Amino acid sequence: MVATAAQPAARGAPSRRRRAINLRIPGPTTLPPAVRRALAGQMINHRGPEYAALQQETVEGVKRVFQTKNDVLFFPGSGTGGLEAAIVNCFSPGDPVLAITVGSFGERWCAIARAFGLAVDQLQIEWGKAAEPDLVRRRLRQGPPVKGVLITHNETSTGVTNPVGEIAPLVREHEALLLVDAVSSMGAIPFETDRWGVDVAITGSQKAWMIPPGMAMLSVSDRAWQAAEQAKLPRSYWDFRAMRRYMERGQTPYTPAITQMYGLRAALKLIFEEGLENVFRRHHAIGEQTRRGLRRLGLQLAADPRYFSDTVTAVVSPPGADMSLVRKRLREEYGVVIASGQDHWRDTHFRIGHLGYVRPAEIAQALRALGEVLGSH
Amino acid sequence: MVATAAQPAARGAPSRRRRAINLRIPGPTTLPPAVRRALAGQMINHRGPEYAALQQETVEGVKRVFQTKNDVLFFPGSGTGGLEAAIVNCFSPGDPVLAITVGSFGERWCAIARAFGLAVDQLQIEWGKAAEPDLVRRRLRQGPPVKGVLITHNETSTGVTNPVGEIAPLVREHEALLLVDAVSSMGAIPFETDRWGVDVAITGSQKAWMIPPGMAMLSVSDRAWQAAEQAKLPRSYWDFRAMRRYMERGQTPYTPAITQMYGLRAALKLIFEEGLENVFRRHHAIGEQTRRGLRRLGLQLAADPRYFSDTVTAVVSPPGADMSLVRKRLREEYGVVIASGQDHWRDTHFRIGHLGYVRPAEIAQALRALGEVLGSH
Repeated sequence: MVATAAQPAARGAPSRRRRAINLRIPGPTTLPPAVRRALAGQMINHRGPEYAALQQETVEGVKRVFQTKNDVLFFPGSGTGGLEAAIVNCFSPGDPVLAITVGSFGERWCAIARAFGLAVDQLQIEWGKAAEPDLVRRRLRQGPPVKGVLITHNETSTGVTNPVGEIAPLVREHEALLLVDAVSSMGAIPFETDRWGVDVAITGSQKAWMIPPGMAMLSVSDRAWQAAEQAKLPRSYWDFRAMRRYMERGQTPYTPAITQMYGLRAALKLIFEEGLENVFRRHHAIGEQTRRGLRRLGLQLAADPRYFSDTVTAVVSPPGADMSLVRKRLREEYGVVIASGQDHWRDTHFRIGHLGYVRPAEIAQALRALGEVLGSH
Repeated sequence: MVATAAQPAARGAPSRRRRAINLRIPGPTTLPPAVRRALAGQMINHRGPEYAALQQETVEGVKRVFQTKNDVLFFPGSGTGGLEAAIVNCFSPGDPVLAITVGSFGERWCAIARAFGLAVDQLQIEWGKAAEPDLVRRRLRQGPPVKGVLITHNETSTGVTNPVGEIAPLVREHEALLLVDAVSSMGAIPFETDRWGVDVAITGSQKAWMIPPGMAMLSVSDRAWQAAEQAKLPRSYWDFRAMRRYMERGQTPYTPAITQMYGLRAALKLIFEEGLENVFRRHHAIGEQTRRGLRRLGLQLAADPRYFSDTVTAVVSPPGADMSLVRKRLREEYGVVIASGQDHWRDTHFRIGHLGYVRPAEIAQALRALGEVLGSH
């Protein structure tokens, strides 16, 4: 991971000049040159041997990143589609589930579960806080029995990483399925699918994977397969069973996202060349760099410091700053693209993404630009 | 549309030599160079102004191809996902629908409707035949009242194009919604969404659009919007209402398939430079060329000649030929990739795709190669 994704823009350069963009949102993330070249690949027959080899190679790489021996399935669609797939394959209408939410994406999954008629008990945690294991333990003991627990590993709206490794054994005690939204963490923050005992883990292509949006990837445990056999929710496109049946013979039930898979093959090569542990270390170091730099600018971080995310940082908007204008100036004058807050944090917070194809230089440039714009504001 | 997608391979060239592939399957189709360049585009913020402009431009172009003023929605996913989206947005459990099937893809849609609990009356027509308007008229008059009619415009498994323009007014008489799978026809065969009164038309990116798989595009009429408001089937990812709400302000509810949209923008440019009518004419001429050439080889076409498809031709496997070996030799020795038959036609038929980025030269090379392999067999 050596090439630079974006060159620092000259200070005060004219806003109209075309420049490399420093994409500091929490996904889609910057594509490495090798991935971009791969994306331009010509189409192939999705029922032929070349596709089968592509699928096998990428599935094997994705399993290494998931740290799992479970089946891994690829669905053309966004990460949100993967969240829906987990619901419709594991449950029947009226099934009781506990949805632990610490922000916007947890709430999104909760809404999906409700849309499909599950009896959702929501453990709603204040934005910025994490799902503390003690709190989860109490709720599981005191609440109604549940068939599954939905939790976000890394909450993109607040910059909080939930301690899924500590929560997993608590869920196991209650014989509930553990479903984890790892969309914005997998491949950047350690995630031990098998050791933790995660039944369904879901991720999206446009995050740490350094490829474009358009493919959800999931792992399915034996227990989740049993659930899928019994689940009564209607399903077709997202049906795990059909997808596994086809993938076992090197195909998919319908046309796969071939271009995303070309990109994935190239990105996995970069990940394993760098080394998965090194990728995790780089994300942690860059997370620290980001937080340090933001604090130096006098800014307040939104998340509980014990649970800082190493892929995205949410920041309290400084009093008096029009962050919509700040974001516009960053984009137009510095080529730095940051994200607004989400939902009720839209104007009160902003977010900086630091996942995927990112080096210290991009973070430094973004922080410098942010400091200049806030200072002149 | 001038550049060549594949160069004819030298006769008897060694099978291991790398060569341009002549991808003669009915999708994914060959990508033009301009599309491939576009696919390599760097990521952008999907909540920013650049994305909003990309979406607006591509939606406008797609509307022109659909010949519609209806809303057009883009979903990350395959065309099959679009078929599911149409079902879950228009109907409630138990709703009676007529599914007119003339092959594998009609049956797939029928199966999706059944998976979601619709009361499906299937008008199953023999493979190779079309849905004759008289037959449809009778069934609509004699059968139970239906809330919707599902029909495949162009059946990829048999090479039949159904006369949707003649069937549409019959459906209208019965005040049923008309849902049309135009996955393998839209953009290649004339389709007049508004003039015919099609309520939901669905297409997939990897067909005539000349871009990779991974995006379903749909049009939704006013009547379909009313149905979507009343429909009780559970839905979230495919929810038309949420998608429209977001698309109206230049976004999508979840991350869109940005790379496919880059490709789409480039492909639409090619389509309109050539002229939509010329694109239709080219497909018809190339369809004729394909059928003429196949007959000259003494081969029997599978479809009713009154309803030949201009995007794909299904051919009866010649007696005694091991088509699996023929396809392998075509691929390895000539770089020509054709498709097997589907389902119960798997071994008895084969298919040649002639849609999207295709010129007479590719068809000529494919036919020459086929003739040589069959002749030496």
